[in-house]
Amino acid sequence: MRKRFKNRSRPTGRRPAPSGAGRSKLKIIPLGGLEEVGRNMTIFEYKGDILIVDMGLQFPEEDMPGIDYIIPNIESLKGKEKQIKGVVITHGHYDHIGAISHLMSRLGNPPLYCTGLTEAIIQKKHEEYKNIPSLDIRRITSDSKIKLGQFRLEFFRVNHNIPDGVGIFIRTDSANVLHAGDFKFDFSPIGEKPIEVGKIVRFGEQGVDLLMSDSTNAGSPGYQISEKGIESELDKIFSKTRGRLIIATFASLVSRIQEIINLAQKYNRKVAIEGRSMRNIVEIALRNHYLIAKRGTFVDASRINRMKDNKVLVLCTGAQGEKRAALVRIANGEHRRISIKKGDTFIFSSSIVPGNERAVQNLKDLIYKAGGNVIHYQMMDIHTGGHAKIEELKMMMRLVKPKNVMPIHGNHFLLVTHGRLAKQLGYSDKHVVVARNGQVIEVSKQGVKATRRKMNTDYVMVDGLGVGDVSHIVLRDRKAMASEGMVVIVVSLDREGNLIGSPDIISRGFVYVDASKELIEGIRQKVKQVIAKNKHLAATDHNSLRARLRDDVGQQLYTKTERRPLILPVVVEV
Amino acid sequence: MRKRFKNRSRPTGRRPAPSGAGRSKLKIIPLGGLEEVGRNMTIFEYKGDILIVDMGLQFPEEDMPGIDYIIPNIESLKGKEKQIKGVVITHGHYDHIGAISHLMSRLGNPPLYCTGLTEAIIQKKHEEYKNIPSLDIRRITSDSKIKLGQFRLEFFRVNHNIPDGVGIFIRTDSANVLHAGDFKFDFSPIGEKPIEVGKIVRFGEQGVDLLMSDSTNAGSPGYQISEKGIESELDKIFSKTRGRLIIATFASLVSRIQEIINLAQKYNRKVAIEGRSMRNIVEIALRNHYLIAKRGTFVDASRINRMKDNKVLVLCTGAQGEKRAALVRIANGEHRRISIKKGDTFIFSSSIVPGNERAVQNLKDLIYKAGGNVIHYQMMDIHTGGHAKIEELKMMMRLVKPKNVMPIHGNHFLLVTHGRLAKQLGYSDKHVVVARNGQVIEVSKQGVKATRRKMNTDYVMVDGLGVGDVSHIVLRDRKAMASEGMVVIVVSLDREGNLIGSPDIISRGFVYVDASKELIEGIRQKVKQVIAKNKHLAATDHNSLRARLRDDVGQQLYTKTERRPLILPVVVEV
Repeated sequence: MRKRFKNRSRPTGRRPAPSGAGRSKLKIIPLGGLEEVGRNMTIFEYKGDILIVDMGLQFPEEDMPGIDYIIPNIESLKGKEKQIKGVVITHGHYDHIGAISHLMSRLGNPPLYCTGLTEAIIQKKHEEYKNIPSLDIRRITSDSKIKLGQFRLEFFRVNHNIPDGVGIFIRTDSANVLHAGDFKFDFSPIGEKPIEVGKIVRFGEQGVDLLMSDSTNAGSPGYQISEKGIESELDKIFSKTRGRLIIATFASLVSRIQEIINLAQKYNRKVAIEGRSMRNIVEIALRNHYLIAKRGTFVDASRINRMKDNKVLVLCTGAQGEKRAALVRIANGEHRRISIKKGDTFIFSSSIVPGNERAVQNLKDLIYKAGGNVIHYQMMDIHTGGHAKIEELKMMMRLVKPKNVMPIHGNHFLLVTHGRLAKQLGYSDKHVVVARNGQVIEVSKQGVKATRRKMNTDYVMVDGLGVGDVSHIVLRDRKAMASEGMVVIVVSLDREGNLIGSPDIISRGFVYVDASKELIEGIRQKVKQVIAKNKHLAATDHNSLRARLRDDVGQQLYTKTERRPLILPVVVEV
Repeated sequence: MRKRFKNRSRPTGRRPAPSGAGRSKLKIIPLGGLEEVGRNMTIFEYKGDILIVDMGLQFPEEDMPGIDYIIPNIESLKGKEKQIKGVVITHGHYDHIGAISHLMSRLGNPPLYCTGLTEAIIQKKHEEYKNIPSLDIRRITSDSKIKLGQFRLEFFRVNHNIPDGVGIFIRTDSANVLHAGDFKFDFSPIGEKPIEVGKIVRFGEQGVDLLMSDSTNAGSPGYQISEKGIESELDKIFSKTRGRLIIATFASLVSRIQEIINLAQKYNRKVAIEGRSMRNIVEIALRNHYLIAKRGTFVDASRINRMKDNKVLVLCTGAQGEKRAALVRIANGEHRRISIKKGDTFIFSSSIVPGNERAVQNLKDLIYKAGGNVIHYQMMDIHTGGHAKIEELKMMMRLVKPKNVMPIHGNHFLLVTHGRLAKQLGYSDKHVVVARNGQVIEVSKQGVKATRRKMNTDYVMVDGLGVGDVSHIVLRDRKAMASEGMVVIVVSLDREGNLIGSPDIISRGFVYVDASKELIEGIRQKVKQVIAKNKHLAATDHNSLRARLRDDVGQQLYTKTERRPLILPVVVEV
């Protein structure tokens, strides 16, 4: 306590005025992406000007039934719309672009900067939303140089598992930041050029105060395999396979799709595309020349049943076992045009997103039961990820030589793990910032500081057309109904609180009523008892009567079934 | 067609009478365990006598909200209770014992044969159920020889990740079967003896017509690591750690628990046990001498806060991220006696069960955020599985030299994979049986045949105290309510079908009502319209009125929100 008073009594003249101090430092506020995979969005603020990098969505956690996705919370930007000089998008993945259509008009529609493929994907997505203003997109290349208020930006091409991704070199009078986007090093990529290592070194030589670097694979040793290596493994499968080939991969893996097209041409197979997102991306990429295919490469899926097996290749989505995707519908016999036949070879050219393991096992079961065979990335090198592994993360630090390192993108334990890598390279604790979502980070030539200030980053959940109207209370009710179902009790009372007729008991998701007449009759008797015993409440205080019904019926049901359904008493006064 | 007629016209005397033919072959009917992990239960039937091996439960799939577990369907045993000569349990895991308390009394309580630890675990579990007869358990050892009607049984000790497991050599006049249970080869196990390789060879020399062998790890190359190797890796961690150690593993991993106790004694740490299942198993295993610990090894968790950090070891369950387990409660600060402090080292000495990956990531995040550190099996060899890997499966086939091989235990794609291993060893297609649940398999000296007969193996779901009363309809409703919530509409009508008062609209899990008054008011207006327009139904046919309300309100809500809540109209006639 004494110390604090002492500090306070210091003449203020001896340090810069608070407003000046705050304004002279570059502030960085990550609104998401530091405690999860997804909803990446970072605010840079300097001398009143704001730059935003990325605006992504996050897919829901398992305990959020019915939620489509989560978008960043922009409460802290309220009233600052005019300060936003621009939004830069590093690449076209949904965890970096998925919130654009929801948020841009609420931020005053600032100009949005991105490369060609990223623009095409954003526009296609934006068309799905009606009644919102069109976007002010300004296309850049990795060679662009732009000035947005206080921010001078340059870019460098990165490799990732979608083409046309960039990292950003952000300069201000206070500090320089290198934001590496989502990246990996691929020195023999397919259908795109390698990461611009030389530029990264030059930016580093200009002095980087803070490197913000992708942590998604900070727990994985070694280097990613080059796409060229994947292609040669796939080639082995193509050369040996006599039956039909069904290849599933992520729709956004344009490089992989290029390899598959190349191999289809080499081995005289026609490519049928299945799945809406796969068709969309192939169409966009072909139109914008990010995919190259000869005339006659593609075929409509309706024709493949008339073709020889060794001429057929189906390219589709769904290797995560997603229920509505093309692959699952093919496997469970619900697909209109394609059904499995004995001798079909399925290639899952993708990793399994954590949480989907069981769905993928069930998918493999369906395929094997129908006589198909599955080749998976655990058996051959037929997939490589898009995020730098441990040795590549170290390479990035060695190339950039930043004064400070801030791990971004990934679960918190991955940021910590990435931070430890920096320490292995000699960075001391104070030069490594492992921050939380919403935390205000200050950077200057003097160093980096994670302050105690924290912006609101509560989940904003999107469900159907509703944004933010599903609260934790709604989710709690959904979860309760999901695990134990619900019981509605309808009673009609006269003004004196006498029961009229017999109570109606309606249950859903609780027990199968035909099998449980006795249980339902027990509830009915209990309801009659409660009303008879609480006649004063029945006449005057329906709220309390409802609470009593809920408690007593709930107790009885728990004793008899060990289940706790949601109980909803409805009192009708007649 | 001609051929079939020709066959039919053959004098029947040239082949054995059909009844005799059926009776002279050993029939095997797997009621579960061939298309999933869990609900293992196999029927052996010969000359009217029945032997059952194992009686396990299956944990629910992701699309079965609220279901506790699934048990085997015993419909095909109805009326055959008196033919059941005995039930043999191979080991004490829930996927082999979990349905015993539900099914034994319905099967006429036949004698149940198992080893000592298995018996203790079954009895402990059985005590939790009230009002059911006690079990007729007859203890065996791996050296027992028993005769159950037509079946002559001998046993052999296996290694697995719970001690006291056995495989069974089943002899009949028609055929000999070797059922290997859940097994692996561990030539330096901890706290138990190695698998009885010599006996397996001797049984093989007597002629095995069919080997039934565990497929759980048929997709994993190589051999399992020996428990001795795990102990030495754990020793490295113990020797380096100065802070507290919190070790999470599966409760049934008695060998692992023995290693941890050994190391605690070596490094002078006291062991606090947390989690009900962990406490139960340690108590059972200590009492039955399957675990050996010196006096003073254990300490109550309430005392650890007063002990030096380097004296503390907490042993608990929950490394799968299960919400109610001790470890998650410690990590999220909800545990009564233990909270994380900086410098705590967490060891997850277990693999991740498919489907739990995301929960485990979230758990690691909680621990890192609280300042703890996690050592995981992906970083060091601190876990080994209980199921034979590829080379061990081949070893079993080489030791037994069976005429035919039937892969059991595991997802269907794993049975297929295991079958391919047999083919690599020279077995032709007709000597490898990949069967489905419920399929009737016939074995004799002449060979093995998977018939087209199939017993009912539909899921029997247990939810709370109810067995089989949750149907697919109930699950469908639960899923609907989980993803979109529900809306109850209550209308009071007079006998002429006129609305009395205003309709009551109650929603749960749909939208947060305070935020959506307009939406609710819209429903109310729609309800009034529907009733006014359908006065004839309102007066005479409430079922049709309800259907109309459900359709029209549903349509309106979908247009406005793109959600489809479960809609429940209630009509009260006054």
